[in-house]
Amino acid sequence: MKITIAQLNFLIGDFTGNVDKMLAAVETAKKEGADIICFSELATCGYPPRDFLEFGDFIRQAEKAIKRLAKAAKKIAIVVGSPARNPVVEGKDLFNAAYFLADGKIKQVAHKALLPTYDVFDEYRYFEPGNEFKIVRYKGKRIALTVCEDIWNIGNKNPLYTVCPMDEMMPQKPDFILNLSASPFSFTQAKSRIKVVRANIKRYGIPMFYVNHAGAQTELIFDGGSIVMSANGKLHDELPYFEECVRTYDLEKVMNNKKSRPQPKDKMALIHDALVLGVKDYFGKLGFKKAILGLSGGIDSAVTAVIAVRALGKENVRVVLMPSQYSSDHSVNDAKELAENMGIEYDIINIKKVYDSYLKTLKPQFKGLPFNIAEENLQARSRGMLLMALSNKFGHIVLNTSNKSEAAVGYGTLYGDMCGGLSVIGDVYKTEVFELARYMNKDGEVIPKNTITKPPSAELRPNQKDSDSLPDYDILDEVLFQYIEKRKGPKAIIKMGFDEKLVRRILRLVNINEFKRYQTAPVLRVSSKAFGMGRRMPIVGKYLS
Amino acid sequence: MKITIAQLNFLIGDFTGNVDKMLAAVETAKKEGADIICFSELATCGYPPRDFLEFGDFIRQAEKAIKRLAKAAKKIAIVVGSPARNPVVEGKDLFNAAYFLADGKIKQVAHKALLPTYDVFDEYRYFEPGNEFKIVRYKGKRIALTVCEDIWNIGNKNPLYTVCPMDEMMPQKPDFILNLSASPFSFTQAKSRIKVVRANIKRYGIPMFYVNHAGAQTELIFDGGSIVMSANGKLHDELPYFEECVRTYDLEKVMNNKKSRPQPKDKMALIHDALVLGVKDYFGKLGFKKAILGLSGGIDSAVTAVIAVRALGKENVRVVLMPSQYSSDHSVNDAKELAENMGIEYDIINIKKVYDSYLKTLKPQFKGLPFNIAEENLQARSRGMLLMALSNKFGHIVLNTSNKSEAAVGYGTLYGDMCGGLSVIGDVYKTEVFELARYMNKDGEVIPKNTITKPPSAELRPNQKDSDSLPDYDILDEVLFQYIEKRKGPKAIIKMGFDEKLVRRILRLVNINEFKRYQTAPVLRVSSKAFGMGRRMPIVGKYLS
Repeated sequence: MKITIAQLNFLIGDFTGNVDKMLAAVETAKKEGADIICFSELATCGYPPRDFLEFGDFIRQAEKAIKRLAKAAKKIAIVVGSPARNPVVEGKDLFNAAYFLADGKIKQVAHKALLPTYDVFDEYRYFEPGNEFKIVRYKGKRIALTVCEDIWNIGNKNPLYTVCPMDEMMPQKPDFILNLSASPFSFTQAKSRIKVVRANIKRYGIPMFYVNHAGAQTELIFDGGSIVMSANGKLHDELPYFEECVRTYDLEKVMNNKKSRPQPKDKMALIHDALVLGVKDYFGKLGFKKAILGLSGGIDSAVTAVIAVRALGKENVRVVLMPSQYSSDHSVNDAKELAENMGIEYDIINIKKVYDSYLKTLKPQFKGLPFNIAEENLQARSRGMLLMALSNKFGHIVLNTSNKSEAAVGYGTLYGDMCGGLSVIGDVYKTEVFELARYMNKDGEVIPKNTITKPPSAELRPNQKDSDSLPDYDILDEVLFQYIEKRKGPKAIIKMGFDEKLVRRILRLVNINEFKRYQTAPVLRVSSKAFGMGRRMPIVGKYLS
Repeated sequence: MKITIAQLNFLIGDFTGNVDKMLAAVETAKKEGADIICFSELATCGYPPRDFLEFGDFIRQAEKAIKRLAKAAKKIAIVVGSPARNPVVEGKDLFNAAYFLADGKIKQVAHKALLPTYDVFDEYRYFEPGNEFKIVRYKGKRIALTVCEDIWNIGNKNPLYTVCPMDEMMPQKPDFILNLSASPFSFTQAKSRIKVVRANIKRYGIPMFYVNHAGAQTELIFDGGSIVMSANGKLHDELPYFEECVRTYDLEKVMNNKKSRPQPKDKMALIHDALVLGVKDYFGKLGFKKAILGLSGGIDSAVTAVIAVRALGKENVRVVLMPSQYSSDHSVNDAKELAENMGIEYDIINIKKVYDSYLKTLKPQFKGLPFNIAEENLQARSRGMLLMALSNKFGHIVLNTSNKSEAAVGYGTLYGDMCGGLSVIGDVYKTEVFELARYMNKDGEVIPKNTITKPPSAELRPNQKDSDSLPDYDILDEVLFQYIEKRKGPKAIIKMGFDEKLVRRILRLVNINEFKRYQTAPVLRVSSKAFGMGRRMPIVGKYLS
């Protein structure tokens, strides 16, 4: 038996485009003599469709897509994820289903039983958990058909669910497992995925074909890396990361494989490639081509600019230098050097006129009160509004350049440097931004050395440094990681050896700045806990604040 | 037996403050000779605690709060909502629990079985559904202890769950139902609540004490209106809306009640009072006093200003008139008249200098290209930034004045008129804003008549009217309602008699402007489907767009 894995990039709601793409893969698979082709989870409608699932019209279109695919399922079986209606009146109205299409019709439908409802996932919002566990029989083989999370309830100490779908299916003696996934990237996820597939194989002793989505949907980057694992736990194949791939396997060879062929998984390489895909798909899928961003001479905007150029092409990235009286010469020079290294044009727009006009206009109200956060924010906002004006005039999307450390503690200006349509490095801590910059320079200097080595500064008042108001990033980032990713409380973090006053100050800053993060652009997710949909915190509250 | 209902206003994460408040109510109840006092759902930690529930430290504090309350449960039983740990390793780590505290200790714990996971609710994100249904025996009575959603699976055609907790408890012959709720306001919810309580009573034939939270938590306004319903379906009592109340009932009298005493439920009165509480609690709970907003002379900012004054007091509301060359005289006059009617000072700040400085600064880039959305947005953004600067200088929160109709179709400027810390009328359609204005004038003109009668205009170019680019609000709002609240697709809406081209255009505008709404302030929720946490849509997608 030959099985084709189709790791494709779908667009949410584009039923016609998604099915067209699948039909092309079906043709390829047929040519390769495949008996079965398998697509990813909710492939017809794209993942995550979110509240579109509540629209009857949307579900009808998904049903039509399945009909179109079923017609093509001749001389080959098509396995595809799509929402299915729940015929029982009690419970949610939909299932998250895997359709097995053969002989021109729907042969069988399996319902996802374990519905991830944590972090960025909201599946129980829409779906009833499946409660029938029936293998599919096809061409003499017995197939355990599972959807994503269904295989994730083993191999961890604190399982989230009370059922293991594969446990229920094993008495029916399946020959192999097919898993349809839409598993988003984080820089640790690729390893976790292989670990969980292997845990299944150790427990059940049969091979698995694991098909992932490859493509970004707003903040979520689906990294592909689909897996074929033999019954002995060897990694028979691992599909490429961050790109589409259609590949056919001989089941017999998978059964008797002797070698593992894992792909390299360098943290910075993964984050870099993920962000490039994230930007590329955000623009491409929205029908935009051109990005604009401000270059301050600092490292955040430099790294963001490089990603933008690699994602969109240098002809599509416009950078603007917006110095003020507080900008140092090296800032302007570093920014120029970066633009020249990338081979792109730049504008220099001094913000003095705009900034002064605000001060002049507000003079009667400000009444000579001392310079404070109001004036600092006015500078950042003058820059933000200039970028927005250019983007409105010429049809760019403004890229936000905030990093995760500053987003965490609120070290940024709402509607100023926090503006933009997409936050590119908002899930990358400052210390990781430095690593990323060095990674980008590995084949030759793109980001000027001075940008990497000089002390970070917002340059909103004379001789300002980040370290005037923030702890060293090494310490800050470690405390933030313990609080945000590890969800440790103040006592546990202090116990690790950090200064009590500092820990309480950092945690307080994170919590009181929730209102700012609520209003920021979607953040490309590369860690296990990014700001945005995956982290839902009260704005009004009194906890560690 | 005497039972006290304590409908109180809690603050998320303020365990000490919340327990102090409950202990004061316990004293009151004791004086009134109560046997049992009942608080609302998750009263110890406040509702909704969201991802704070993922912090071990947060749960430990909730456990301490329960211990403090248990100590006070002498000569009176205390029933209170709080998270409880799930001792079973499989499944989620927490239950959403109702603690029955008596004789100084935890006597029994009931776990919520039906976990709302739709609209603004995310309970399955945190909690394992309860699966034991055991009544509480206390002082010779048998009590069915339920939490909010547990009583909501009957009386509707398409039940969301496959279990009815009360069905499971009825064989144990309970004497009455206690329900601990945190049920947020919408202008239809008060009626739905009474209907569902009555449906339970018809089915089970025993009275119910239904305790709701009263207070706002960012966008969610919990309206109180707790219910005591007799076994014959008469509304024995309905507690006040939008305020705290502690009231004691004699169970015998509730059993034999002959009269219903419903409160009036006028739509505009409810929305008005909800918004006033929403603003009051947002400021009060964050520790802020003062609001600032721009007055355009139009109806949206007028209605927002009146709500602000009624919530915060006129001494705490600062209004700013920011005319441009495109502002009409009547706009300025109408805004002045409103400020004078409310008895508040106003600033007039002409935006010309700021606006011109942008145009001058951008001249080399704009290269004489025709006036377009870029210049329109620059005006709106100049205003937004002036308000933000004043708020930064003087410690106000900027109130956003966008209505639901314009938020829906993207008729607003990101970082301009869409800025602010809280969207006051963002869940009120334009046609409802007019109704609300008339309601506000019912005891004398506050909002100038001309503001209500003149055609709406953004005044961003000469003689601009909303109707130049938008359909009439009567039609627009009805189409939006069918799409947003009723989740009808284009075909169903067209079938109602609306023009096909118009419907497709409106739905497209809603979908392509998701990116703007993603970045706006929390919206006070007054309808059954508000923008924000309760409506989760993809930004990147191709559906009706």
